[in-house]
Amino acid sequence: MAISVETFFLNPQFQGTLQSQIQQMIAEGILSGRFRRGERLPSTRKLASHLGISRITVTLAYTELLANDYLDSRGRSGYYVSENAPVPPNFSPPQRGEDKVDWSRAIGRRFTGGDTPEKPQNWASFRYPFIYGQTDPTLFDHANWRLCALQALGQKDFTALTTDYYDQDDPRLVEFIARNTLPRRGIIARPEEILITLGAQNALWLAAQVLLTQRRMAAIEDPCYHALRDILTQSRCHLAPLPVDRDGLQPESIPPQTDVIFTTPSHQCPTTATMPMMRRHALLERARELDALIVEDDYEFEMSFLDAPSPALKSLDTDGRVIYVGSFSKSVFPGLRLGYLVGSESFIREARALRASVLRHPPGHIQRTAAYFLSLGHYDALIRRIREALRKRRAVMQDAIDQHGLKIAGQGAHGGSSFWMQAPKGIDTERLAAQLHHKGVLIEPGRQFFNGSGRPREFYRLAYSSIPVERIPEGVALIAGALK
Amino acid sequence: MAISVETFFLNPQFQGTLQSQIQQMIAEGILSGRFRRGERLPSTRKLASHLGISRITVTLAYTELLANDYLDSRGRSGYYVSENAPVPPNFSPPQRGEDKVDWSRAIGRRFTGGDTPEKPQNWASFRYPFIYGQTDPTLFDHANWRLCALQALGQKDFTALTTDYYDQDDPRLVEFIARNTLPRRGIIARPEEILITLGAQNALWLAAQVLLTQRRMAAIEDPCYHALRDILTQSRCHLAPLPVDRDGLQPESIPPQTDVIFTTPSHQCPTTATMPMMRRHALLERARELDALIVEDDYEFEMSFLDAPSPALKSLDTDGRVIYVGSFSKSVFPGLRLGYLVGSESFIREARALRASVLRHPPGHIQRTAAYFLSLGHYDALIRRIREALRKRRAVMQDAIDQHGLKIAGQGAHGGSSFWMQAPKGIDTERLAAQLHHKGVLIEPGRQFFNGSGRPREFYRLAYSSIPVERIPEGVALIAGALK
Repeated sequence: MAISVETFFLNPQFQGTLQSQIQQMIAEGILSGRFRRGERLPSTRKLASHLGISRITVTLAYTELLANDYLDSRGRSGYYVSENAPVPPNFSPPQRGEDKVDWSRAIGRRFTGGDTPEKPQNWASFRYPFIYGQTDPTLFDHANWRLCALQALGQKDFTALTTDYYDQDDPRLVEFIARNTLPRRGIIARPEEILITLGAQNALWLAAQVLLTQRRMAAIEDPCYHALRDILTQSRCHLAPLPVDRDGLQPESIPPQTDVIFTTPSHQCPTTATMPMMRRHALLERARELDALIVEDDYEFEMSFLDAPSPALKSLDTDGRVIYVGSFSKSVFPGLRLGYLVGSESFIREARALRASVLRHPPGHIQRTAAYFLSLGHYDALIRRIREALRKRRAVMQDAIDQHGLKIAGQGAHGGSSFWMQAPKGIDTERLAAQLHHKGVLIEPGRQFFNGSGRPREFYRLAYSSIPVERIPEGVALIAGALK
Repeated sequence: MAISVETFFLNPQFQGTLQSQIQQMIAEGILSGRFRRGERLPSTRKLASHLGISRITVTLAYTELLANDYLDSRGRSGYYVSENAPVPPNFSPPQRGEDKVDWSRAIGRRFTGGDTPEKPQNWASFRYPFIYGQTDPTLFDHANWRLCALQALGQKDFTALTTDYYDQDDPRLVEFIARNTLPRRGIIARPEEILITLGAQNALWLAAQVLLTQRRMAAIEDPCYHALRDILTQSRCHLAPLPVDRDGLQPESIPPQTDVIFTTPSHQCPTTATMPMMRRHALLERARELDALIVEDDYEFEMSFLDAPSPALKSLDTDGRVIYVGSFSKSVFPGLRLGYLVGSESFIREARALRASVLRHPPGHIQRTAAYFLSLGHYDALIRRIREALRKRRAVMQDAIDQHGLKIAGQGAHGGSSFWMQAPKGIDTERLAAQLHHKGVLIEPGRQFFNGSGRPREFYRLAYSSIPVERIPEGVALIAGALK
């Protein structure tokens, strides 16, 4: 690669000759790791003309650098960073001015320090990754995704790929969701009632911003998805965490002052409980009583392999009070960052304006790729394949869990991709996780899902979405061993 | 396409026979546009088993629909939506429950009603699109972008494509920005000081959220980028709009209480003024005096074809008080939605936490594609090509403007992609735009860029980034004609 002449600027405050300034610029570039071995420097003519100085000054500087073995000359083809040039220790920068800003004062709002735990980036290198929410490369339909992406990259789709949509979405993706995805959940929606988001996370965030203020109250499930609690904490609304039972959220426990209820009826996160139809009706009734809204995170409904999925809460909603959150990130792959919000037009309009302000719109190319992947039927085929694999893994895992006498704390009626587990009293699953980490086993401690101060420490989550079926028995045995 | 059996649910509250319920479900699906002509219905056996009812009931319902010409039977291959089936008027939904939510109360915060104007989605169908910020398909390097996307879609990059990065970015893109992009602006930054964003819009939004509160004051340029003003208005901070002169923001006009200064020194938006070096130093000095931060939107620096770009304000900053906003969306294509923030680690840490909460991370695949496009040198080649084209267009446009005696109000010293124009006194450029719209000419009225109540109406922006050079004289002539 050639080093661009534009990386060179003269510093009017430089103490020294022009020649030494040029030498130093180049040497600093090499030392700081910006210029690398084998990269070609601008010609002396080019650099001199760019800086507006005489060519001989540049030639002298280059000659000096040659002598110091920073540079290497290959006759007529020019100057290169020498193969013997020093290599910086892992890209440490040159001396810079000291940071003189008092950041503790300058930062108006803090967003660090939430409940969402740090997760290992290198999870794929673990032998027993009982990790939740990542993609299993053996299940993903890589070839067809690639074909769809190629199609979306074609000349015909140029506009979809490159245009600034302002606040709009890809109409083809929206149409597919309206015509095919939502009807499977029993939901009828017009395009104006749908907003594409950057994953379910973004959908939940948008809903919270539009609906909540410091004077409003949100009811959440306890335990619940930690990132949701971070979102709500940042919105500074009042929070009512409501303990869930084996059927999920208990409608009668919702406090009368509640404005918005956040719930995961398909698969309660993390306990995997599926809310029975009776309770769904009771929940809607309770919301009507309180004139509250419901944000339904229709979490993992695609992973219903033990039983047919129930229609979404939103499909039973005749008042327009349910806001529905769907996602393709879980079922296609999480790096896709594609989800959607469904709700009344008045709500979607505000969420769309907010999204436009925050990020305009999800990238056009990924929207179009997803539209092809969905409409060509690859999505359904992928879901079927994932369900089949998860069904098998779940059976193997259930056997292993039974065999070792481990305790399941929750169990989704319709499948899912994880078990919610309970360790014997007195066991801190964060320590357990650290211990298992050394043995190549990744588990997820449960404390972070709970609310408040006295969070129980004995729960943990074991997902089987990314672990090969044949490693499950061994992995569970290692967990059982560590628990003893 | 086959209609999935999963779109069918029985409604326990349905008044009527099972058979009529099935008939109605299908007819509604067709009438609502969810099922379309030629689509295949689930087999009677499949649908019966899915709904848990007898097959004869389904067969009778289908037969009825055949008679009514909703369906069509093709012998053994099953039932299809008939080619004579009614087509709904542009996807209007079936009767639903009435919306019983009082949205004026339920919405906690409004985000609609900002200054950012609605822009025509169909700009490409105009003959004279003097529109700003879209991609010219004749300049974009479609073939190489496609190749890079393909490479990023390869098996080797599977992890980059699919993984949930949590709060992280693609390290290859970050490294390229640190090593190549920033040094061209005179900036040295470590990876921890860089955050990838969904375009410059997202970067500005994140900075505003982290730095501003209701008790803080932001200084902005007047006129300025309307979307920035929307962002700041939503953050509810105090706003000090400061009139710009031909050199941009005037440092001495910044009020003492200012906490954050938002500025576009490379090309002031929309007047295209480039801030001279002397004033950059004065601006930094003023910020130091006030202990204020500066958010530098390094707007259009790549489009400097009249003169070499000046180093960024950030490169002169020894205190760490400049936060730098860069973007690839303008120079590659706006639908890409990829930009970055550069600032002190303490700031980037908070912005990263907020981004994680809002959307986690920009999609992995587009990050990796951009990393390839940049590192293979295609980006530089593209920029050179765009510059060359813009240089020519600008010259032609300048001639046409001079010829018709139109008045230029601002002029970037370094090029850019637009002229900031001033119509004769008394002309309302919003009306002018509406009038020209009918003649196939798109111009951008200037009022929306200004702050406050008495916004001048005689300014307008003429961009030449998306109009073919040969149409410029005709387009300018039409504008001149309308002004008379």
